[in-house]
Amino acid sequence: MESPLAPLIKQLQRLPGIGPRSAERLAFVLLSWSKTDVHLFSSTLVDTHQSIIYCETCFNICITSPCSICCDARRATTSLCVVAYPQDIVALSKTNVYNGLFHVLGGLISPLDGIQPDMLRVQELLSRIQTGSYSEVILAISPTLEGDATSLYLTDCLARFSSISVTTLAFGLPVGAQLDYADPLTLQRSLEQRRRI
Amino acid sequence: MESPLAPLIKQLQRLPGIGPRSAERLAFVLLSWSKTDVHLFSSTLVDTHQSIIYCETCFNICITSPCSICCDARRATTSLCVVAYPQDIVALSKTNVYNGLFHVLGGLISPLDGIQPDMLRVQELLSRIQTGSYSEVILAISPTLEGDATSLYLTDCLARFSSISVTTLAFGLPVGAQLDYADPLTLQRSLEQRRRI
Repeated sequence: MESPLAPLIKQLQRLPGIGPRSAERLAFVLLSWSKTDVHLFSSTLVDTHQSIIYCETCFNICITSPCSICCDARRATTSLCVVAYPQDIVALSKTNVYNGLFHVLGGLISPLDGIQPDMLRVQELLSRIQTGSYSEVILAISPTLEGDATSLYLTDCLARFSSISVTTLAFGLPVGAQLDYADPLTLQRSLEQRRRI
Repeated sequence: MESPLAPLIKQLQRLPGIGPRSAERLAFVLLSWSKTDVHLFSSTLVDTHQSIIYCETCFNICITSPCSICCDARRATTSLCVVAYPQDIVALSKTNVYNGLFHVLGGLISPLDGIQPDMLRVQELLSRIQTGSYSEVILAISPTLEGDATSLYLTDCLARFSSISVTTLAFGLPVGAQLDYADPLTLQRSLEQRRRI
């Protein structure tokens, strides 16, 4: 006997981090919602998915292009922060430290997944930099295998713009971390990139 | 600046166990789905919510009433298992131990939440039992404050059916539990309900 909730449970399991048990629990909760609430949930999903586009300048997600960051006159227009995904912009914005512009690559170089540099928005990045508007490029890319490969590739591409300062985020111990729980690679980077206090 | 994903994130946060960070992550994943996938997800939710009804006999969720359990001729029709919610039937069915019928109360007595016995399907339960079809009633109700109150209330209601064997689930140490990690109340019940081996 298949549960009448089986199709819904199957759909919910497609979400990341939702296993069979969580999906079942979510299905029963959704079932207890009012018809109005379920329709609001459903239409918000479909409407948002339909209305989101990519900014023609920085490839951030937005509803009108160029996006609100690119249009923001209060931002430092000489700094460009290169990230892999739109969600990285959200994370960086929360720090309230960076006030420049962004460029979303749309992924990271990953030969195993068949993602080559020409599938990322690298040409668009170089075109933006060629305009001469930027004095600083920050590579804000995760220190993973794919991230490091992408950073290395971009560093090569940007080498010819000698007037631009190219930096990457600092890598080391996260705030609040305990040294004896840190993994060897993080500790290695922390040592290599140690600085005077 | 509000994120264009804000309405979707807000809706996702209404799901149990989904906080602001998880909702944001889910929103970005849903955004990366194809239009077809998003529509399938959304329509499955709305369709399931619309098509699910309650069985007129046992109040389990179903698509056609009476439900597939009540209609199943291979089941032992003299045993009735009383549960609080339809999801409890799913959990009990997975054990493959019980082969009788069910009765869903639709909640538990909880004066703090304003849930009185007359708001549960107790009258419907008594009507079923009054037909004389059942020789055994199993109260499969969680051993919580509300569950215990409900079990006690039902035991009182069922006292007049002297020919029916009324039992509750066994309470004690869960399989695989470590005795020193068990909470005092569980240990107390395990001691009180100890049995000869």
